Amino acid sequence: MGNRRLNQQIQFIVEIDKLKGILRRSYLVGGERRENSAEHSWHLATMAMVLAEYGDEDIDLLRVLNMLLIHDIVEIDAGDTFCYDDEGALDKRDREGQAADRIFGLLPDDQESELHRLWEEYEARNTPESRFANALDRLVPLLLSYHAEGKTWQEHGVSSGRVLARNAHIADGSPELWRFARTMIEDAVARGYFPRSDGADDDRTVD
Amino acid sequence: MGNRRLNQQIQFIVEIDKLKGILRRSYLVGGERRENSAEHSWHLATMAMVLAEYGDEDIDLLRVLNMLLIHDIVEIDAGDTFCYDDEGALDKRDREGQAADRIFGLLPDDQESELHRLWEEYEARNTPESRFANALDRLVPLLLSYHAEGKTWQEHGVSSGRVLARNAHIADGSPELWRFARTMIEDAVARGYFPRSDGADDDRTVD
Repeated sequence: MGNRRLNQQIQFIVEIDKLKGILRRSYLVGGERRENSAEHSWHLATMAMVLAEYGDEDIDLLRVLNMLLIHDIVEIDAGDTFCYDDEGALDKRDREGQAADRIFGLLPDDQESELHRLWEEYEARNTPESRFANALDRLVPLLLSYHAEGKTWQEHGVSSGRVLARNAHIADGSPELWRFARTMIEDAVARGYFPRSDGADDDRTVD
Repeated sequence: MGNRRLNQQIQFIVEIDKLKGILRRSYLVGGERRENSAEHSWHLATMAMVLAEYGDEDIDLLRVLNMLLIHDIVEIDAGDTFCYDDEGALDKRDREGQAADRIFGLLPDDQESELHRLWEEYEARNTPESRFANALDRLVPLLLSYHAEGKTWQEHGVSSGRVLARNAHIADGSPELWRFARTMIEDAVARGYFPRSDGADDDRTVD
């Protein structure tokens, strides 16, 4: 297999198979097991195809898809940080930065730079594409938790107020999807999907 | 949630979560479990990003990604048909066609037509994009089987001759990736990754 460039690319492709073993906190819709970051990335990218029209500005769908496909690859080294884990969030950037260097570094230089840039853009949320991609990444766990009758929220004692606060930046990527998400969260409250202690508007800074 | 169009799109997104429960014959690289069709679709799409330069003609990467993201959704109803299962292949088209009608039918009409067309194009292999997408879909199980030391081939008694014959159409999408695949298959033979009875060039019609 004498083509050095292709061999590097294949090494990267084999390495990222490990993303299939990184578990998130979300359950599948049926609730039978937690989802992994590879299948989550597929779900997100497919969602982007179907919901592209709700992007707030004229987004480049190819760029959104590229971003979503690679946005979680750093978790192979850094693990998944639960979005309500404030402590884990403290060194998340460092851990993920090192992971990006190692894993994207398996690729030929031009592709290493390209994927590193895409991942930085996703994290920075400073373009219409990255804001939309982040909005979907926040929306999909809400959808899954809602359809698993709040299993993740119950397990981790996450209140509706925290969910509203943590997900408000969906609005930066898509006001319409944020309206949809808020209606769903209100409906989840009405159905009793949040922990029993929920009710005080503790940190409901968003409403 | 008063937006009928968005509600249909969300219903589709929730429905396709089931693809995470459809198991393929391939094992993960570590060999610890079989992969599912959702994580497989992610792996393929990411591979397309990285290997796009090996497309035989000037391919539209967005179209390739869209195709790969949705190409296995029909398996939610029709199940995964192992590529060496000649009997299962007989009614595969009928089963998958009905599945496409039902699942894509959850979407608004314009998107239903669009995804149906993409899926038909993928199956027909009659465009540079669909030939390249199919080439990757054939290459990735070879890569996984090779890196799991032939576990799938051993389990199902698949000879190197059948593997060569079944995968020859990789060349239609990318001659360079087919050269790579052949070298890998030859190496797998040398390493003893195929079943022991392998050796007779029974159906090695490709070489």
